[in-house]
Amino acid sequence: MRELNEIPGGRRGRRGRAGRRGGAAVSDAVSQLPWRQPRNPYRPTTVLSEDAVEAIHGASLCILEETGLDILSDEARSILTDAGADVSSGSARVRFDRGLVESVLGKAPEQFTLHARNPERSLNIGGTWLACCAVASAPNAADLDNGRRPGNRTDFRNFVKLIQSLNIIHLSGGYTVEPLDIHPSVRHLECLSDFVTMTDKVFHAYSLGRERIRDGIEIARIARGIDEATLDREPSLLTIVNSNSPLMLDDPMCGGIIEMARRNQVVVLTPFTLAGAMAPVTLAGALALQNAETLAGLVLSQTVSPGAPFVYGGFTSNVDMKSGAPAFGTPEYMKAALAGGQLARRYRLPYRSSNVCAANAVDAQAAYESVFSLWGAVMGGVNLLKHGAGWMEGGLQASFEKMVLDADLLQMVSSFLEPIAVDEAALALDAIREVGPGGHFFGAAHTMARYEDAFYSPMLSDWRNYEAWCEDGSPDVRAKANQVWKTLLRTYHAPPLDPAVREELAGFVARRKEEGGAPTDF
Amino acid sequence: MRELNEIPGGRRGRRGRAGRRGGAAVSDAVSQLPWRQPRNPYRPTTVLSEDAVEAIHGASLCILEETGLDILSDEARSILTDAGADVSSGSARVRFDRGLVESVLGKAPEQFTLHARNPERSLNIGGTWLACCAVASAPNAADLDNGRRPGNRTDFRNFVKLIQSLNIIHLSGGYTVEPLDIHPSVRHLECLSDFVTMTDKVFHAYSLGRERIRDGIEIARIARGIDEATLDREPSLLTIVNSNSPLMLDDPMCGGIIEMARRNQVVVLTPFTLAGAMAPVTLAGALALQNAETLAGLVLSQTVSPGAPFVYGGFTSNVDMKSGAPAFGTPEYMKAALAGGQLARRYRLPYRSSNVCAANAVDAQAAYESVFSLWGAVMGGVNLLKHGAGWMEGGLQASFEKMVLDADLLQMVSSFLEPIAVDEAALALDAIREVGPGGHFFGAAHTMARYEDAFYSPMLSDWRNYEAWCEDGSPDVRAKANQVWKTLLRTYHAPPLDPAVREELAGFVARRKEEGGAPTDF
Repeated sequence: MRELNEIPGGRRGRRGRAGRRGGAAVSDAVSQLPWRQPRNPYRPTTVLSEDAVEAIHGASLCILEETGLDILSDEARSILTDAGADVSSGSARVRFDRGLVESVLGKAPEQFTLHARNPERSLNIGGTWLACCAVASAPNAADLDNGRRPGNRTDFRNFVKLIQSLNIIHLSGGYTVEPLDIHPSVRHLECLSDFVTMTDKVFHAYSLGRERIRDGIEIARIARGIDEATLDREPSLLTIVNSNSPLMLDDPMCGGIIEMARRNQVVVLTPFTLAGAMAPVTLAGALALQNAETLAGLVLSQTVSPGAPFVYGGFTSNVDMKSGAPAFGTPEYMKAALAGGQLARRYRLPYRSSNVCAANAVDAQAAYESVFSLWGAVMGGVNLLKHGAGWMEGGLQASFEKMVLDADLLQMVSSFLEPIAVDEAALALDAIREVGPGGHFFGAAHTMARYEDAFYSPMLSDWRNYEAWCEDGSPDVRAKANQVWKTLLRTYHAPPLDPAVREELAGFVARRKEEGGAPTDF
Repeated sequence: MRELNEIPGGRRGRRGRAGRRGGAAVSDAVSQLPWRQPRNPYRPTTVLSEDAVEAIHGASLCILEETGLDILSDEARSILTDAGADVSSGSARVRFDRGLVESVLGKAPEQFTLHARNPERSLNIGGTWLACCAVASAPNAADLDNGRRPGNRTDFRNFVKLIQSLNIIHLSGGYTVEPLDIHPSVRHLECLSDFVTMTDKVFHAYSLGRERIRDGIEIARIARGIDEATLDREPSLLTIVNSNSPLMLDDPMCGGIIEMARRNQVVVLTPFTLAGAMAPVTLAGALALQNAETLAGLVLSQTVSPGAPFVYGGFTSNVDMKSGAPAFGTPEYMKAALAGGQLARRYRLPYRSSNVCAANAVDAQAAYESVFSLWGAVMGGVNLLKHGAGWMEGGLQASFEKMVLDADLLQMVSSFLEPIAVDEAALALDAIREVGPGGHFFGAAHTMARYEDAFYSPMLSDWRNYEAWCEDGSPDVRAKANQVWKTLLRTYHAPPLDPAVREELAGFVARRKEEGGAPTDF
């Protein structure tokens, strides 16, 4: 398989030259890493023995065979009946025998290209590649100036501008914040149209019934300026399906899986298995449930279209057993993220995990929960990192300052994933000889030749000494993050778009709006 | 080798029953994990190929052979002359041929027991064991109420009480904050006496000349109530030696290495190799320098006493090339922490790394830099985690709130290191069958039997919903940390101490003070 983005620039172009690649220029006003997709050179950390992986696999087969799922879609039940599943006549219950499950394993691709309308923004999904999404689906937006408010289109669009401007955000993963001021029947048309015109990166459509997914697929096709047959060969849209844990798939989700699989587009199945609430209180049990639900989605997808791209989603975390509140970035979350990666690799599927936290403020808690999440996800071998930048409050808030903070964290992770060069020049024996005992390397020729790009240069970290920091009013990183997103918005410009594409898109959206958009009775 | 603390309690005893083991009761007022030393079940992450490890090893042999170190100690030079090193007659320069270096490899133990005066607090150093130290050597103390001030004995003692009270802090690693109001000639006597009387955990003595180290060794012997021969068999004290990078070892440091090795006590050699300043700007060069200096210390230690316990210290980080300010918890720090672990294991030595940050405030930056440091250290296979709790400002500040925050982070790491149970009960198939599609697990028997101890219960994280959090005045984690350390101080009580030991210790300290303490002309 051809792989995109074979690190053409390496570490060069770090400061002030960001993002000149890729056709669409982005802001030069903020120092950031250039656009590129990182690869993870580290061997994934394993938390489960091979026997334990097989035990979880076996347990999920038992769950699928004995308990099954309630599948609230006539079409899905009919497809699964034809495939040999045990479908109850009087209820929604579908049971999957292990032969059926085993028969679909290995059909979906281990790695594939997810195409953006700008080919330079196309992504490798799977293998050792990492792609980072922005926060998605938050009902509220927040920033330091105006606090927290219900999502609206202005905030939505501002976040979309940041997605385009921040090189480390490789794709959007849904509406950053839900624009509640757009009617649900046409929200997908307006928002997907915004994604196409305001960014040139890959985008996502919600599995809220088949009309929205069909519209999303058509918008992806129009955006890329390709015909239907090409789209059917080239995955260009993704959808996240969160099964209703425990063990339910509703009709809009099934519609999404079926439509996306038919058109060879990407389904990311992610059960919402919070241990202690929607899943067993034990991690092994929660993982067995997660695995069963993901496999059920895989069976549906691969029965509809063997070989359709499918991503194994892990989202298992725990609740606070004192209050029932969801918790994220916990030790349990980290271990579940490692285990999820092992299960995904067992099935040779790309792996989705997330950068999540439960904090209400962009404070130390938000930072430690996020970095712990990243630790679990990255060392677990994540390929698609959802909610990479901006997520707060267990998903109830998209924060502008957190988006910048997370972009900095993701850039640090990306730098952490760059190998250490060990060659004669890097070993610096000449410089060490030249400097000698008691000297210093500040002025050494070896240093002077390399100092500009030697180290990651953070967007936010304040490394001034205490006195200088106090004189400046003892700012915390939030204040700097606030300035960064405002600068990015001020210097944003839309990526170029073929006028013919723009016209076709506008026509499609106008027509579909005239038709009333999509049903809202789900 | 006998290993201590074989996880007798596992996850039980989490809430309200903390610390009842180990003889010395600690505060029950704050919910924390019980005393125990974690083991790291994860395969260490490798950032260097085996060839790259050998290239760095080879480069450090070249440095030792061609450039050598300035060793500012007549006794050390004399010892090294006898061992076959190339010692200049007219200067401090000592060159080590590779045969000499290779001849000492493998003599120091891969793992050993570090004895505390309370046997229940003795530690395994090496292998897969992790021991966490408190912050050490900060010139300033800080808290939310009184801000930042130069270190004094009251703050020093309050930190020592927290070391005793926080189960996840396994030992002290030096003076948490420098008590500047105690004269340097007797500071070590007063502080080490405080460590013995106010804690029952392992402590550290500074290599500031041989008098202080001899006093420290004697205090360690008195504290344990053992004779000299037993002490010489049982490591009971540690010292950190930070070589003056590049390539210098001063007289007080050499005295420390020699005295400690002679008495079979623990030397942790940690070069202060900040890439771009005291070390090459390239990570490979900084690591080669770190490795050369550590090996020089190892040669001295093992020549004095083959088999004396020695810990490989890695502290390589980078400076901000714009300002020269030291930076910590950076991507470069993380990679150097992984590489340091690989080098330590190449020599079969226990590995020391640190939990560090450069932040001025206990904000998001402090948290992300600390967790990134922990990520590098823990996945690098750290055995001795220095500055585990309380370090701020690149070491210039010990913070009371940060100590609590870090204790919470370390407990999360400790929980992350506990394996996932995968057995029939944990897989929860009966519970999943019982709950079925669309149900919930809150009330399931499987949940009820386990919910109390199922998940890590953090000291600080605020998981309330946004509305409840706002009603409570939108506190950030600092405010809670402030309450926790005050509660711990209020409920602190000193661990029991044999009156005979107390008397002998008081007598020794009084005599040494009468004698004028230790020289201060270093």
